Amino acid sequence: MFILPQKDSGTPTTSPGSVSTQGLHSNHGDGLEREGSGKPDQKPLKLYGVGDPTAMFSSDSPYLSSRGSIIKWFWDSAEEGYRTYHMDEYDEDENPSGIINLGTSENKLCFDLLSRRLSQSDMLRVEPSLLQYPDWRGHLFLREEVARFLSFYCKSPAPLKPENVVVLNGCASLFSALATVLCEVGEAFLIPAPYYGAITQHVYLYGNVRLVCVYLDSEVTGLETRPFQLTVEKLEMALKGANSEGVKVKGLILINPQNPLGDVYSPGELQEYLKFAKRQKKGVPGKNKFGNPGLDRGPSGFLIHCHPTLGDAFDLPAKLSPPHDLPSRHELHVMVDEVYMLSVFEESVGYHSVLSLERLPDPQRTHMMWATSKDFGMSGLRFGTLYTENQDVATAVSSLCRYHGLSGLVQYQMAQLLRDRDWINQVYLPENHARLKAAHTYVSEELRALGIPFVSRGAGFFIWVDLRKYLPAATFEEEMLLWRRFLDNKVLLSFGQAFECKEPGWFRLVFSDKTHRLRLGMQRVRRVLEGKSQVAEDAPSC
Amino acid sequence: MFILPQKDSGTPTTSPGSVSTQGLHSNHGDGLEREGSGKPDQKPLKLYGVGDPTAMFSSDSPYLSSRGSIIKWFWDSAEEGYRTYHMDEYDEDENPSGIINLGTSENKLCFDLLSRRLSQSDMLRVEPSLLQYPDWRGHLFLREEVARFLSFYCKSPAPLKPENVVVLNGCASLFSALATVLCEVGEAFLIPAPYYGAITQHVYLYGNVRLVCVYLDSEVTGLETRPFQLTVEKLEMALKGANSEGVKVKGLILINPQNPLGDVYSPGELQEYLKFAKRQKKGVPGKNKFGNPGLDRGPSGFLIHCHPTLGDAFDLPAKLSPPHDLPSRHELHVMVDEVYMLSVFEESVGYHSVLSLERLPDPQRTHMMWATSKDFGMSGLRFGTLYTENQDVATAVSSLCRYHGLSGLVQYQMAQLLRDRDWINQVYLPENHARLKAAHTYVSEELRALGIPFVSRGAGFFIWVDLRKYLPAATFEEEMLLWRRFLDNKVLLSFGQAFECKEPGWFRLVFSDKTHRLRLGMQRVRRVLEGKSQVAEDAPSC
Repeated sequence: MFILPQKDSGTPTTSPGSVSTQGLHSNHGDGLEREGSGKPDQKPLKLYGVGDPTAMFSSDSPYLSSRGSIIKWFWDSAEEGYRTYHMDEYDEDENPSGIINLGTSENKLCFDLLSRRLSQSDMLRVEPSLLQYPDWRGHLFLREEVARFLSFYCKSPAPLKPENVVVLNGCASLFSALATVLCEVGEAFLIPAPYYGAITQHVYLYGNVRLVCVYLDSEVTGLETRPFQLTVEKLEMALKGANSEGVKVKGLILINPQNPLGDVYSPGELQEYLKFAKRQKKGVPGKNKFGNPGLDRGPSGFLIHCHPTLGDAFDLPAKLSPPHDLPSRHELHVMVDEVYMLSVFEESVGYHSVLSLERLPDPQRTHMMWATSKDFGMSGLRFGTLYTENQDVATAVSSLCRYHGLSGLVQYQMAQLLRDRDWINQVYLPENHARLKAAHTYVSEELRALGIPFVSRGAGFFIWVDLRKYLPAATFEEEMLLWRRFLDNKVLLSFGQAFECKEPGWFRLVFSDKTHRLRLGMQRVRRVLEGKSQVAEDAPSC
Repeated sequence: MFILPQKDSGTPTTSPGSVSTQGLHSNHGDGLEREGSGKPDQKPLKLYGVGDPTAMFSSDSPYLSSRGSIIKWFWDSAEEGYRTYHMDEYDEDENPSGIINLGTSENKLCFDLLSRRLSQSDMLRVEPSLLQYPDWRGHLFLREEVARFLSFYCKSPAPLKPENVVVLNGCASLFSALATVLCEVGEAFLIPAPYYGAITQHVYLYGNVRLVCVYLDSEVTGLETRPFQLTVEKLEMALKGANSEGVKVKGLILINPQNPLGDVYSPGELQEYLKFAKRQKKGVPGKNKFGNPGLDRGPSGFLIHCHPTLGDAFDLPAKLSPPHDLPSRHELHVMVDEVYMLSVFEESVGYHSVLSLERLPDPQRTHMMWATSKDFGMSGLRFGTLYTENQDVATAVSSLCRYHGLSGLVQYQMAQLLRDRDWINQVYLPENHARLKAAHTYVSEELRALGIPFVSRGAGFFIWVDLRKYLPAATFEEEMLLWRRFLDNKVLLSFGQAFECKEPGWFRLVFSDKTHRLRLGMQRVRRVLEGKSQVAEDAPSC
């Protein structure tokens, strides 16, 4: 699903519009803003932001409740851009001058493999039990298969159990259900930003739960850090800040591999975040105790061509001391969204699921999410799953699954797919990874040739692209203008503000598409940037 | 999904437990209760009740929010009975002494036809567009097919439009979405009771919307009335009562054909209810203007063997005068749930969809719901649809459809099914209706032979059975004891309180099952009643 702008594109400086307007109107006088770096066009950055998803809302309907009007508004906001694209979709034969979509995070590289597998005769089984009311948690045969599948691909130390599995129609629904059963109305989850902006709606529309952004930035402060790196200190500060505003935080959302960064957390980092979430005693968290070679990768494991002027732009202000004196218990639930876990195509990147950890700091508050949308390139199939040892959480989510159920026939198909290890291991995954890698290589080389910095680490379907130098001024208005310029030139990207990135000028570029579309898309990107670059150089400095 | 008791079965007089505890704890001092009829064991009946779905709630979880604990409790409440049945399910060969399920409203008569149709090769089409993110309203090809299907089977005066169709994973989800977008938290819908009790959860779990019961009773007051007949006067009184308690009512839910009554509204009745919902000026609604021969059926068109002592039990108290002085505008949304519209198996019953009406009093507030769960015997397939001319409502529901989406592959299958008129008209519907009729005839004759009164009209999968004479006292405790006696004797029924019936002793008996199971089920029912009847006769009069 791509993140698109809302109608009112003329509004300057405040959100030029995305389906998420998270944090735009949060407190600016809380003393937690960091000072500018001395660069005249560098606005002060906040370290956290308590979201108000309806800050930009207008237009009540006489037929709807106030929440109904807001829910409708979320649709309308997304619709304008969605319509623009769908009214003029690129087609090699029918509409070669149509819009190339490098904005929606879908894997379009493997439909041939998937179609072949899903069309096999074993996929169409129609039994009475599949047509009758199901167990709302999911049919047992499917939950058993999911448990086996996750045990294997997540490398769990012990076999996972079907009773900890809840199956439903996608991770959007799972976010909605978890927000509702874990939080009261108005409570919040922490989430490192930039993040996949649709989560704002997922937790808000039904659940009325907000997100507290933990803002990350592109600064690289030393050998042990990478751009947009999440640290426990940042989590602590955001939590402390939200608490100081009276916002009750109930959980932490981690996306791993991260969207839009393509970043992957090491087991050591994961442990630290999980310990932070539990935090039973005072002081900073202990160092990671895992000896895994994938740990604590420095920037060497990270592909980045960083903006040269940014090195010292974001020093931590002195008033923000490390959190040695924090409250003794957080007891945050941690939801780890691992929908890209099998889309790590760079062999050197060691991926570690939260389910692979030998000992979870707080297993009753650790919940893993997965789906076939990304790893099996089937966002239209609507299959997602929760794995949690907490039976209260599993039961409460199951109770909502009556509203998130998927067809018995699809449940059967998914069980067939997940149990077919030969196909997955010998056909699908190797081919999928090879194609992802080739597409990634093509796009990243194009970007290098253009001299464009970007962040990417060999996981996911996207590259996080630094186009800040193409903005005449470091504002979201300029970011939006650039985005529109791309769209006018028939290539759709996602702009950083839709991910709550606090540095204007970052874009997410999806590369998991066929060569001919990628090639044409990149030509159009280049055309815009070469023109735009000219404009930027000509423009007076702000 | 069947309605089952909760754990605490020992609690007397107050709810012996159902997943719905609607109205149990509503105001008793509001002056709207009707007096007892003079029969010593007849408790006063209320004319309406404002539901408190959590009245029986207990057991907070330390891991869940308060709403999460309630959501979990709904699951646990249903689970006890569900487990009892599923742990000991009847199977002709494997477990012939297992429980026969005459409680769950599913059509088990046509799996052969359905399996054959759904297994045909045209059902397995795997195209990239079906695997990608869909239009959340449903793929256009499916919405077009739904519009054509409803135009034909609902006999709409003009072709229905795809843009008024929203497709999602079942009517449970649709109730959840409509409640959320039409009501604020704590507002309410009117619903005539007895009603399919699960709707209580559907509007409450996510939407926090309550139901105001419009209590119907078995009294037959004249030639023009039938038992449990809904009248505009009753609607007006319930609305007035709810308003007097400060409860804001936003809509009216009509189930047509009705569940559990199997009743069918005439176009004239439908018009009156719709006019009530709109109500622009003072006074009682005008008389029906339709000359349709299906109108205003008297009890002659209605199968009932009514309890002989009940004729004059429920006179309207003098203090409840007809609503001549009501507020001038109601502007209630009307949701017409027509999931049994093609399951009218008695030819003499003329069924009229709300979409067949020439002129709706308030088309912008009239919303029709349909699904394949009942009419195509596929509750596990998860396909439902909304038809509404109101684009605000359609859009707001669509916005929530991200959480209620169904697989692209299933959308394709449903389009194939709905467009196959030859199969539907020449194979499925005639055979389905013949089988339903045969099963209905068998069960109703068994009931007659037992001397048991019942309500049924040739629509739906169930008979509403009057077992009041088998209760030693007219209490819900006795109703529950009888229900347990059935379960102990390995036959599952649904008890009246689960449908918010205010007369203890009514049960819903599902007949849409294969002959061998029906025969055995009815034998078990007979065994219990013959024993229970003996007990009742021996018991001292209360």
